Amino acid sequence: MMNKIRAGIVGYGNIGRGAEKAIRASSDFELVAVVTRRAADELILDTPSALKVNADDMLSLKGKVDIMILCGGSATDLPVQGPVFAEHFNTVDSYDTHVKIPEYYAVMDEASKKAGLISLISAGWDPGLFSMNKCLGQAILPRGSGCAFWGKGVSQGHSDAIRRVEGVEAAVQYTIPYEEAIEKARKGESALLSTRDKHLRDCFVVAVEGADKAEIENNIKTMPHYFADYNTVVHFISKEEYERDHKGMPHGGFVVHSGETDAGRHTMEFSLNLDHNAEFTASILLAFARAAYRYHTEGRTGALTPLDIPLAYLSPLPDDVLRKEML
Amino acid sequence: MMNKIRAGIVGYGNIGRGAEKAIRASSDFELVAVVTRRAADELILDTPSALKVNADDMLSLKGKVDIMILCGGSATDLPVQGPVFAEHFNTVDSYDTHVKIPEYYAVMDEASKKAGLISLISAGWDPGLFSMNKCLGQAILPRGSGCAFWGKGVSQGHSDAIRRVEGVEAAVQYTIPYEEAIEKARKGESALLSTRDKHLRDCFVVAVEGADKAEIENNIKTMPHYFADYNTVVHFISKEEYERDHKGMPHGGFVVHSGETDAGRHTMEFSLNLDHNAEFTASILLAFARAAYRYHTEGRTGALTPLDIPLAYLSPLPDDVLRKEML
Repeated sequence: MMNKIRAGIVGYGNIGRGAEKAIRASSDFELVAVVTRRAADELILDTPSALKVNADDMLSLKGKVDIMILCGGSATDLPVQGPVFAEHFNTVDSYDTHVKIPEYYAVMDEASKKAGLISLISAGWDPGLFSMNKCLGQAILPRGSGCAFWGKGVSQGHSDAIRRVEGVEAAVQYTIPYEEAIEKARKGESALLSTRDKHLRDCFVVAVEGADKAEIENNIKTMPHYFADYNTVVHFISKEEYERDHKGMPHGGFVVHSGETDAGRHTMEFSLNLDHNAEFTASILLAFARAAYRYHTEGRTGALTPLDIPLAYLSPLPDDVLRKEML
Repeated sequence: MMNKIRAGIVGYGNIGRGAEKAIRASSDFELVAVVTRRAADELILDTPSALKVNADDMLSLKGKVDIMILCGGSATDLPVQGPVFAEHFNTVDSYDTHVKIPEYYAVMDEASKKAGLISLISAGWDPGLFSMNKCLGQAILPRGSGCAFWGKGVSQGHSDAIRRVEGVEAAVQYTIPYEEAIEKARKGESALLSTRDKHLRDCFVVAVEGADKAEIENNIKTMPHYFADYNTVVHFISKEEYERDHKGMPHGGFVVHSGETDAGRHTMEFSLNLDHNAEFTASILLAFARAAYRYHTEGRTGALTPLDIPLAYLSPLPDDVLRKEML
């Protein structure tokens, strides 16, 4: 009998709850503790045996947890939590602020190297699985170009941005790729595509009673970074309609890499079609937690990304079984 | 300036020639030699600087070649060549006889471990890229099932089998997946699919003049292993039609993994659409040759498969550039 990997979850939101479910579906893991910044006593967990621990007391878990699954957001949680936990625990997270990844990597690498531990960062689907496929495409077909599309699905970041507009009570934003852009990417013409060419941003907004809808619409469409560079459509809907039709978390997307060799063109695609973004992301985190812990047991230290992980390390199956069943 | 990786190609058929082209497209490689069992002097290479070496003289390349790309077939070439070359060189191959992979792995592992070298086996698209995606799917969504589809494309093995039927002058076999089966796999119902449910085998045959076409058709359709378990369609065509329409090497296929978490179903797909099967396979081999050589420089020894390779090792780009550009 192998010992189970003793996991901790940091942050009990959508992804944290998803991680708890993923642990239950994986017989090689056990959930030891959930760490929260809120009142730990008030947490109601699905795993009665798990400890509820305040973030301030996280050191009490040293020696009891093999790896911490950091489930906070990238904007404000992970930049603070990440290095603090990496000093004391192996960690895995889905840090996704693309432009700041090198900086976050450096901080996590320093903390985990000093501690003699592993911190695996950016292990979601984008960055994460998409990054792996971009790297694969470029390595195999260097005379080519890759392109990622998102949707149709809910963008939490953009939905949050709309909710901060004055006069908005509730909102959800769907990202929808243009079929024409997808076809261009498959032909290797992705370099010709502008941001506006690739995705439509489709917004469903519940306005506060009496709010100026024209102003809301204008404030959304001209919002820099989030909407100004896109074709954006705004639909005003009732609260009832919102509650009935727009509470799911479907998402998906795909990476296309198209490249040439002398005899022709080849296209590689990796696509995801997800009923529940957070539960899928949590399932990815758990597979990478397994890999990170295996690296730790091999004596490695420092930060890693999904590009550093052999696929076999993600699986609970022994290497010889994988060779027999997967190859 | 980094030194280039000095590659040798063993076998100068479709894949060997593809490997030569892939080396030309990759600035971190140089082609040092082509090894052949035929008269080496008579080879006409695209790379004038490369040595032409008879297989019997391969030891003359020791110290001159960093890795040998083994481009022979899996039925008779690789089981013999593989271990012989692995005793003296780092190797990469696309060994694809699925059921015999554990046995081939063991032989290659012993030879390369004894030599203090690396041998990376089964690095094509199936096995290879498909295996990686099967492993990824099962690791992330353990409550799910995966399924591979091939085509529409030419199966060399099945085309060869038809050509061995008496009265056949030329033939090509296209493997075509059933749309209905694909939809079932996406819903997680791939376990319900029989071999016959998944693919149609569509054969275009040029008969020798005067041959009994009904007998040819019957001999094809009832051929064990190759056709008996499938729905098979046989079209008789003229030599002209064959030369005009059926000389390409298009292929492709995809792996679907569909699995559940508590909140719903998630589908992961990896698909390939290839104009030229052999050139694409050769491009994969080259990326894995890069990875194998990097493992060698790190002091590792023994056999590896694509499941053991971090994606970053496939790329010529340094890790920090990959983190910046791919994540």
